[in-house]
Amino acid sequence: MSRFDGVLAMLRRDDVDLPTPVVLLDVMERNISRMQEFAASHGVDLRPHVKTHKCVEIGRMQLDAGAVGITAGTVGEAEVFADAGFQDIFIAYPLWVAGSKPARIRRLAETVRLRIGADGPEAIQRLASAMEDAVGLIELVIEIDCGAGRSGTRPEEAGALAALARSRGLRPVGVYTYPGQGGSDRAARARAADDQRVALTAAVRSLVSAGITVEVVSAGSTPTAAYSPGGPVTELRPGEYVFGDLDNVRLGACEPDEVALFVASTVVSDQVHGQAILDVGTKALGREGDPRKGYGRVAVDEAVLDGPELFRLNEYHGYLRMPTGGGLPVGQAVAVLPNHVCPVVNSFDELVVARTDATEWWTWQVAARGRLR
Amino acid sequence: MSRFDGVLAMLRRDDVDLPTPVVLLDVMERNISRMQEFAASHGVDLRPHVKTHKCVEIGRMQLDAGAVGITAGTVGEAEVFADAGFQDIFIAYPLWVAGSKPARIRRLAETVRLRIGADGPEAIQRLASAMEDAVGLIELVIEIDCGAGRSGTRPEEAGALAALARSRGLRPVGVYTYPGQGGSDRAARARAADDQRVALTAAVRSLVSAGITVEVVSAGSTPTAAYSPGGPVTELRPGEYVFGDLDNVRLGACEPDEVALFVASTVVSDQVHGQAILDVGTKALGREGDPRKGYGRVAVDEAVLDGPELFRLNEYHGYLRMPTGGGLPVGQAVAVLPNHVCPVVNSFDELVVARTDATEWWTWQVAARGRLR
Repeated sequence: MSRFDGVLAMLRRDDVDLPTPVVLLDVMERNISRMQEFAASHGVDLRPHVKTHKCVEIGRMQLDAGAVGITAGTVGEAEVFADAGFQDIFIAYPLWVAGSKPARIRRLAETVRLRIGADGPEAIQRLASAMEDAVGLIELVIEIDCGAGRSGTRPEEAGALAALARSRGLRPVGVYTYPGQGGSDRAARARAADDQRVALTAAVRSLVSAGITVEVVSAGSTPTAAYSPGGPVTELRPGEYVFGDLDNVRLGACEPDEVALFVASTVVSDQVHGQAILDVGTKALGREGDPRKGYGRVAVDEAVLDGPELFRLNEYHGYLRMPTGGGLPVGQAVAVLPNHVCPVVNSFDELVVARTDATEWWTWQVAARGRLR
Repeated sequence: MSRFDGVLAMLRRDDVDLPTPVVLLDVMERNISRMQEFAASHGVDLRPHVKTHKCVEIGRMQLDAGAVGITAGTVGEAEVFADAGFQDIFIAYPLWVAGSKPARIRRLAETVRLRIGADGPEAIQRLASAMEDAVGLIELVIEIDCGAGRSGTRPEEAGALAALARSRGLRPVGVYTYPGQGGSDRAARARAADDQRVALTAAVRSLVSAGITVEVVSAGSTPTAAYSPGGPVTELRPGEYVFGDLDNVRLGACEPDEVALFVASTVVSDQVHGQAILDVGTKALGREGDPRKGYGRVAVDEAVLDGPELFRLNEYHGYLRMPTGGGLPVGQAVAVLPNHVCPVVNSFDELVVARTDATEWWTWQVAARGRLR
């Protein structure tokens, strides 16, 4: 028996269409509270990344719990939340402002407090030119690299970039980074958070030298959140903590009983001995995993990493390895726990929402699904 | 110079929003003609799988070229094409008919010629019960396994399943299979197609023994299409041939100059030496690839496997490895060739369409995007 069984039985009783992602509201509420309390107890702000849920209702719960605003990954994500009344949005991405983006960003900046990331002079010049009269409304946050080797300038360059932004009429307000080098064990993530603090400290020094008032020093990611406060950090931007997933359980960044989203799926074929075929493949789960750890698991008890493993995916087929002597009949509904929750949510237009006690269910729209630009 | 450069320059000139998938219409038209001519020259029907393009306009081109109908993977895909006027649809999937599916399948069966797959007695019983008065409208196609070990009954069981379907009022019309064991070299795919013919021959014998008139014997997949005609095969169901992709080029199932879809993407960061960050990650490309072959390539010449490689993806970031001494400036538009095209199309709501001569462009809707049930 797993704690997902009650909701699964309710959905089956009500003949709900499967496959569908299902959010356990009570579990998610606890995740939201826990991260908010962690941030508050360390004296930092929480600005959750909405790329994980892309859902207005969940963003509102995060604000109600005390988040100072939200983080978005694209202009389109920011627009969905701005249109829903969110007032403080940070697009933590080094945008190249072309196509419809200049007009859309101007409109956003006239509606909400808008922060935008940048890591180089060309993007800053272009953003400033494209903003026209709205340039003074844009709060620019310099992205620095703290060792992940993705995007972000060197910390000691932050001041020069901020000065350039200011000279062009933008309003530089601080720095952000992403400690993606964290890796798979806690010690490595703690070291990444140390790197992050060192880099942010140097970047703040660079900003101050350039005469910039530093309003925000923003640190990233669910797996490193526990190690990130301290030093100059004023804000955390985790996203995945809201739902959790098997990868976060493996990392020790989430407990098994904190996983708040599963995909309700159906066995559609049992013709191969020792295997069941589920109606979830890459178009539901993404190809998140590898042959060694598999592509997701069916929940059978509280130890979420012990269940049968999806060892292969096609687009609409998931291959589930059944234990010796076990088997699942065709038509059986199962709770699939994804390795990585973000692509799952982005694969569906709606989330089914219920509490673990399975008294009722409803749906929320994945309003920012597919907003890639 | 690559043959994608003209269209890319046109899109840049017209300040089109990126990232976006772009279809080269002339290349796709040749792909559609070539596969149709191949099928015709071997005396088999073509029933393209629409999971790849999910686009009504492209499905119409396939019918206009001579396809007998289309293949769908879900009820939702079938509905989009039925609503657009398609009259002959095969849902090649072992459906478990629950939720809204019974009513939706009845409506489909009353509108179009509808074929549905099944590989076991429980699904046949359930389908028959759920169809009520419409049961006689459903053409049932028995799925058999030819060695892929996914779904499908043993060939010698096909007759018994068809007889069960007939006894319940369904109309069994034939068999289908998927030679997914094909593997990575041509000889292995030719062997898989041999397995397919052997299994389909046995299945046909089983149907005939049960007194079933065999109207369709359907074989699968773009990579095996070239080897699939012969024996009892009456129909091919390839999907990916319409666009091609790097995986099909690697397999030898598609020539480099037959790749008809790329993702127009922008360099958003160049802070790390020897690397460029593109605005396409897993939410645009899926995590289709592995660390060895990468997750897609930028086209720089006709040899599409020679371009810079995306060696890592985050959700909105693609890490492009640049050749020594090379580099791409921030803001540069590039043509990204995906490893696997199907998840790319499913990530976007629209396709940009243009001919290689780059005189004009327009958009087509990915009308069946996300129709997972």
